Amino acid sequence: MRLLVANANTTEATTQLCAAAARAAAAPGTEVIPATPAFGPATISTRAENAIAGHALLQLLAEHAGRVDAVVLAVSHDTALEAARQLMPCPVIGMTEAACLTACLVGARFGVLTLGNAGPYEELVARHGLATRCAGVLGLPIAPPEVLRDPAAAHAPILAGIEELAARADSVILAGAVLAGMDRALQPRAPVPLLDGIGCAVKLAEALVALKLPKPATGSFAAPVNRDTIGLAAPLAALLRGG
Amino acid sequence: MRLLVANANTTEATTQLCAAAARAAAAPGTEVIPATPAFGPATISTRAENAIAGHALLQLLAEHAGRVDAVVLAVSHDTALEAARQLMPCPVIGMTEAACLTACLVGARFGVLTLGNAGPYEELVARHGLATRCAGVLGLPIAPPEVLRDPAAAHAPILAGIEELAARADSVILAGAVLAGMDRALQPRAPVPLLDGIGCAVKLAEALVALKLPKPATGSFAAPVNRDTIGLAAPLAALLRGG
Amino acid sequence: MRLLVANANTTEATTQLCAAAARAAAAPGTEVIPATPAFGPATISTRAENAIAGHALLQLLAEHAGRVDAVVLAVSHDTALEAARQLMPCPVIGMTEAACLTACLVGARFGVLTLGNAGPYEELVARHGLATRCAGVLGLPIAPPEVLRDPAAAHAPILAGIEELAARADSVILAGAVLAGMDRALQPRAPVPLLDGIGCAVKLAEALVALKLPKPATGSFAAPVNRDTIGLAAPLAALLRGG
Amino acid sequence: MRLLVANANTTEATTQLCAAAARAAAAPGTEVIPATPAFGPATISTRAENAIAGHALLQLLAEHAGRVDAVVLAVSHDTALEAARQLMPCPVIGMTEAACLTACLVGARFGVLTLGNAGPYEELVARHGLATRCAGVLGLPIAPPEVLRDPAAAHAPILAGIEELAARADSVILAGAVLAGMDRALQPRAPVPLLDGIGCAVKLAEALVALKLPKPATGSFAAPVNRDTIGLAAPLAALLRGG
Amino acid sequence: MRLLVANANTTEATTQLCAAAARAAAAPGTEVIPATPAFGPATISTRAENAIAGHALLQLLAEHAGRVDAVVLAVSHDTALEAARQLMPCPVIGMTEAACLTACLVGARFGVLTLGNAGPYEELVARHGLATRCAGVLGLPIAPPEVLRDPAAAHAPILAGIEELAARADSVILAGAVLAGMDRALQPRAPVPLLDGIGCAVKLAEALVALKLPKPATGSFAAPVNRDTIGLAAPLAALLRGG
Amino acid sequence: MRLLVANANTTEATTQLCAAAARAAAAPGTEVIPATPAFGPATISTRAENAIAGHALLQLLAEHAGRVDAVVLAVSHDTALEAARQLMPCPVIGMTEAACLTACLVGARFGVLTLGNAGPYEELVARHGLATRCAGVLGLPIAPPEVLRDPAAAHAPILAGIEELAARADSVILAGAVLAGMDRALQPRAPVPLLDGIGCAVKLAEALVALKLPKPATGSFAAPVNRDTIGLAAPLAALLRGG
Repeated sequence: MRLLVANANTTEATTQLCAAAARAAAAPGTEVIPATPAFGPATISTRAENAIAGHALLQLLAEHAGRVDAVVLAVSHDTALEAARQLMPCPVIGMTEAACLTACLVGARFGVLTLGNAGPYEELVARHGLATRCAGVLGLPIAPPEVLRDPAAAHAPILAGIEELAARADSVILAGAVLAGMDRALQPRAPVPLLDGIGCAVKLAEALVALKLPKPATGSFAAPVNRDTIGLAAPLAALLRGG
Repeated sequence: MRLLVANANTTEATTQLCAAAARAAAAPGTEVIPATPAFGPATISTRAENAIAGHALLQLLAEHAGRVDAVVLAVSHDTALEAARQLMPCPVIGMTEAACLTACLVGARFGVLTLGNAGPYEELVARHGLATRCAGVLGLPIAPPEVLRDPAAAHAPILAGIEELAARADSVILAGAVLAGMDRALQPRAPVPLLDGIGCAVKLAEALVALKLPKPATGSFAAPVNRDTIGLAAPLAALLRGG
Repeated sequence: MRLLVANANTTEATTQLCAAAARAAAAPGTEVIPATPAFGPATISTRAENAIAGHALLQLLAEHAGRVDAVVLAVSHDTALEAARQLMPCPVIGMTEAACLTACLVGARFGVLTLGNAGPYEELVARHGLATRCAGVLGLPIAPPEVLRDPAAAHAPILAGIEELAARADSVILAGAVLAGMDRALQPRAPVPLLDGIGCAVKLAEALVALKLPKPATGSFAAPVNRDTIGLAAPLAALLRGG
Repeated sequence: MRLLVANANTTEATTQLCAAAARAAAAPGTEVIPATPAFGPATISTRAENAIAGHALLQLLAEHAGRVDAVVLAVSHDTALEAARQLMPCPVIGMTEAACLTACLVGARFGVLTLGNAGPYEELVARHGLATRCAGVLGLPIAPPEVLRDPAAAHAPILAGIEELAARADSVILAGAVLAGMDRALQPRAPVPLLDGIGCAVKLAEALVALKLPKPATGSFAAPVNRDTIGLAAPLAALLRGG
Repeated sequence: MRLLVANANTTEATTQLCAAAARAAAAPGTEVIPATPAFGPATISTRAENAIAGHALLQLLAEHAGRVDAVVLAVSHDTALEAARQLMPCPVIGMTEAACLTACLVGARFGVLTLGNAGPYEELVARHGLATRCAGVLGLPIAPPEVLRDPAAAHAPILAGIEELAARADSVILAGAVLAGMDRALQPRAPVPLLDGIGCAVKLAEALVALKLPKPATGSFAAPVNRDTIGLAAPLAALLRGG
Repeated sequence: MRLLVANANTTEATTQLCAAAARAAAAPGTEVIPATPAFGPATISTRAENAIAGHALLQLLAEHAGRVDAVVLAVSHDTALEAARQLMPCPVIGMTEAACLTACLVGARFGVLTLGNAGPYEELVARHGLATRCAGVLGLPIAPPEVLRDPAAAHAPILAGIEELAARADSVILAGAVLAGMDRALQPRAPVPLLDGIGCAVKLAEALVALKLPKPATGSFAAPVNRDTIGLAAPLAALLRGG
């Protein structure tokens, strides 16, 4: 199967980091196709950037519609996830969504460790309807670009955060595209399972593709049809027009 | 005060309808400035269109940043509301948000009447944290463009829906930009108060401007600063760069 | 418009403090009419006092029914709010209710700072259906009469409480009638917007009056009619008899 | 033990009906002492009446403080329950509260059948924190005085309501002081247990008295002390002054 | 009445401790009948042990079906409570359930103090639908067998835990069969009421027996009938066969 | 990988039906190993049977501990799921749990269609923390053994139920071990995706095995150790003893 790993920010290094984590998790028959939006924020750390990136991401996905079997959103905010799920003819999985759902399979409650503000991740967990499964979100005061430059320097504070969350959580999600793959380095020293959104999303995408579920024909996740637009990139406009 | 009434779709007729409703509600000193995005969906009735419109809306708002005292989002999905609130240096109010909060002041529970799928409005009410105040969302199978063409034809089914909701709700929100101002025609025949999002939002915007509250200096609603972007319209990129 | 600012305790100094805060927030055409109950607790800091004050407040409001355009309850417990809303022929707004709803317009989550037990305010926020928007209630061990005597002495501990709440909240509500107006002194040193219930309630009352919404004709907020009583003050008995 | 059965409205017939139901449920050593407020609404069917009755009830309870071992509130709105619990030196039980908690012991979810508006009972169940245990509230359009005059005439519609609720509930609460004791007549024809608030409250009051639990010395249920008031009945003022 | 006090683990000393606490709480006419399962865990401190003990407990109860008037489950996990309630022809009360419901009668929120992991008790409170009434669960790192050997040694840390919980709770539940009866020793030094599950359950069982409620004839708590099984103890198989 | 498909009732035909559905969903390298308990209920349709089956299931799993790579519980009540997850050294997935989590990936809200009482499934969804994602549970009055005998006869009423749920749900879960595999027959006529718990669980089990997550070393899902028991089957006692 062909799996699109779509970043929502425009930093190619993050795309590559996520693609590497995806390839490490992928089954033999899964081809990972990385993609980076043509416009938008360099990284997403504000609500405004996240909203803008939603359009950039949908435009990017539309370019691949019909040519991939599934999509993993390589952005820890699960940017435009429900919109992408409605828009695309194939399964779409968010990386934090995937980590949360996988965490539900390994214990009662999960913790979320992220870089920056905790609030938006609490809202994200609630948007996924999983607030009662979440033991807490811990936002560390570390800037994502620092981690891209020197991942090892972040290991100590991140491990301390994991220990803090593990006192009340059965697993810990490392939420942040720049943390993709860091679970492999830290798991040996962690008291509970560490969940990497990209790895989880790749496995769930493979599972969904195998299940061959149709799209809903009714309701708010049915494919758009006959939607008129102005000024959008041609593939996106075409997908909204449907037919 | 200068009040931007910003549509999120590209249908100028809807913008004008909302601007008229805004002017009818505005205080003498409030100047209503209508605005329509340069790109995006003709109307928003799918999740994908809503995500795209978020970018279009933020670009539109950025063009007015610093030159208006408050913003009302003339789109019943409260598209990109939190992002706009973070981005702009002035108060930003969503029309459905405004109707929901106003409804809290007139009774215990409100109903929501809309055109099309009810699901996204249930999610919107929950996103605003008001699920326990909502007695139900009723989605009528009427297309918004039909209402623009012939509003009077929709009066009968909408009144029937109001009656149905009023059996368990103390007020009813008419959710949909194309319904802006219809409360004036239907109120005399309705058993409970009808809430028009545009009217409510205008009054709340005036109230907020009068309160002169500062923006939060910390947390996820603090103004963006030093955010790098690629390919965005200049005013939007500038606002994200801050300073 | 004529705006009744009704205290629910019998301390005239608190009534005057709230009336001053109301006048500072009122629009030019708004006349503030302060009122103090004829009987009841000197201040409300227990559940029993709050229940008794409910009757005292309704009796006070009934004396003004038909002669004011709106009512602001100048009591941070929003004492008998829903009862007053049902009883009176005009809009009635609670000061903490108003602050909570206004807080919803400036960020995702608000904190509440009060004097004394936090528990009843947590219950009040839940009664308003806003528990998921509330980041926490902080009850400082300061007696309200001390603040009336020497407000400046309370500034330091209150600012410390604001800082503590601002770590997880986008705004902070100063809940307590004796804190009315203190936001003006503390805002310059606070990292997030401070919300004064009286100010917020005045603006929301003006907004509601402008919207000219009718009372619900059905449900539990419809005006009482044909209700028989014994031993009540004449205006209150008359209002319950209706007609 | 001496058990005060305190009505919150001023209709002596309701007091006597509840006292009879209480005596039928009471253990041999329990003396039932009926009491009716000196002022207030004839019956409580609006929010305003309920608030006024709260004061009337507390005044009534204060007259018996120290001379009874427990109190049952013979009013289905659980009027001023938490205030009474704080104020009195002995256990205080609400009749609907008692029925709800007892219902938790006989099945997963209970239904509530009442006369008039369902909304306030939904709020009451939520105030008790039991919303997830409640399968629904059904409000029958029957006036309480009619039932006092001719209880048998109400049997048929009430049984129909019980059947409707039993489709999704494991028990049904008959909520309304005028329904006190009606469970005995209807139980043989009902598919699920019928819960009479007075009967449940009497048994829970006896249980609490036997457990000899102290009052909390801290928090919002600790006894009032040093509370100054104006114009209250002497016993109530004395109880608030404490000492 | 004959009251079965049924342990769910196989430690006879715990059964006797609970029986003693039950006798101390029982009314004169209540005969306490202790019972211990024939197989299963020595103590229950893991989820797996709790599941196994559910079967052991039901087998034990079935041996007494028809020969007791009510059952108290002397196990703080309320093991197999709903199953036992459905199975038995008489009332069945869980000890932690009983403490939680009783706590609802003495204040707004209760704390839970236990030995070992707090998580399962948080889930138990949620299973009972009482999460909003619970101020927190505190799990002390003390092994139950240590308390059986030397109860007095645990008094100091348990009192410290009670103090911690009382800062935000109106009462504290001592959750753990080995803590049965310890409330009598600690109450004089505690700021809030201490709730012993066995004592509460005995009083609620007596109350339920007096109310003479029938079993539901429909729904998931109706008695089993015509259920075929393999390899179960004869009394349990017979009870499932019903008739 | 070796995947244990463990029934919790003693009806071998159900085990075989689930094993066939599992094989249809399994990846080439997955060997499906069916297993049926040695004792317990023939089918599970009451709470009591479910509790007994928990022990039977854990005994069955213990016999395979260390010899399988993952376990799927072939019982729609997710019987003893959390206990099994704690007990076993490998991943354990419940079939309804799996369907619910998969449903979260295809839309906003799912419906659940089952045979018999809806109540226990509403509780199960709530136990999984997914109540806000569930649009409703529909319990059809069809006995499971009838479906085993003549599956085709059930197609019409089940399709009608799917249509009813699809009006407010984006997918429908067929909950019931005897419905395993029926999705393949009905999907072509259904407007939304149909989710078969066994198929979903097999894919999630394969995903979890591939992720190679460790067990939590702390908290209530850590492996039991040093737990003493009486009268249990040797493999189960050994697993609880640990080491």
